[in-house]
Amino acid sequence: MVLLLRRSLGDVLRSLRMQQGLTLRDLSAAARVSLGYISEIERGQKEASSELLGSLCTALDVQLSDVLREVSNVVAVEEAAVARETRSLPVGNAPHVVASAA
Amino acid sequence: MVLLLRRSLGDVLRSLRMQQGLTLRDLSAAARVSLGYISEIERGQKEASSELLGSLCTALDVQLSDVLREVSNVVAVEEAAVARETRSLPVGNAPHVVASAA
Repeated sequence: MVLLLRRSLGDVLRSLRMQQGLTLRDLSAAARVSLGYISEIERGQKEASSELLGSLCTALDVQLSDVLREVSNVVAVEEAAVARETRSLPVGNAPHVVASAA
Repeated sequence: MVLLLRRSLGDVLRSLRMQQGLTLRDLSAAARVSLGYISEIERGQKEASSELLGSLCTALDVQLSDVLREVSNVVAVEEAAVARETRSLPVGNAPHVVASAA
């Protein structure tokens, strides 16, 4: 499993928009960014440029630092889940040196 | 002053590389990313794709969540500096409604 910033960022941005009761159309108008582009970013399908991310933060009236801290928290939870998955692999899938030490 | 994620991200990535005593060439070889591309990312001139950011984190042996937390901290300091600058603008540069209320 590969952790991709754009997926976690999209989840956080969608969550912030919905917390404020805004539709994609509302945010698109406020940020002057096309609705389709915002939708793709929220679904983690497109990378948001730094300028676009700035526009979305302004339109959502949130600080970029707060968005990044929230994304960091979301990613940390995913990293912990990946680490758990890796530890619980059957012995046959573990690196040989670990299996032979058991 | 516009805060751009790619600039703060570039600063943090360069700082992590230098803390480990790695050259651009070392990191380029470890991450299998062209040296010129990494250099542009560190200088905030190019956006790093999520995949590339993942490769750099792996090569630097750091967690993506830790990088994002550090970037959040850097951005928060810049946001505070921008807020101070805005407050200390001469009255003539302040929005009219504020000037007339003084």
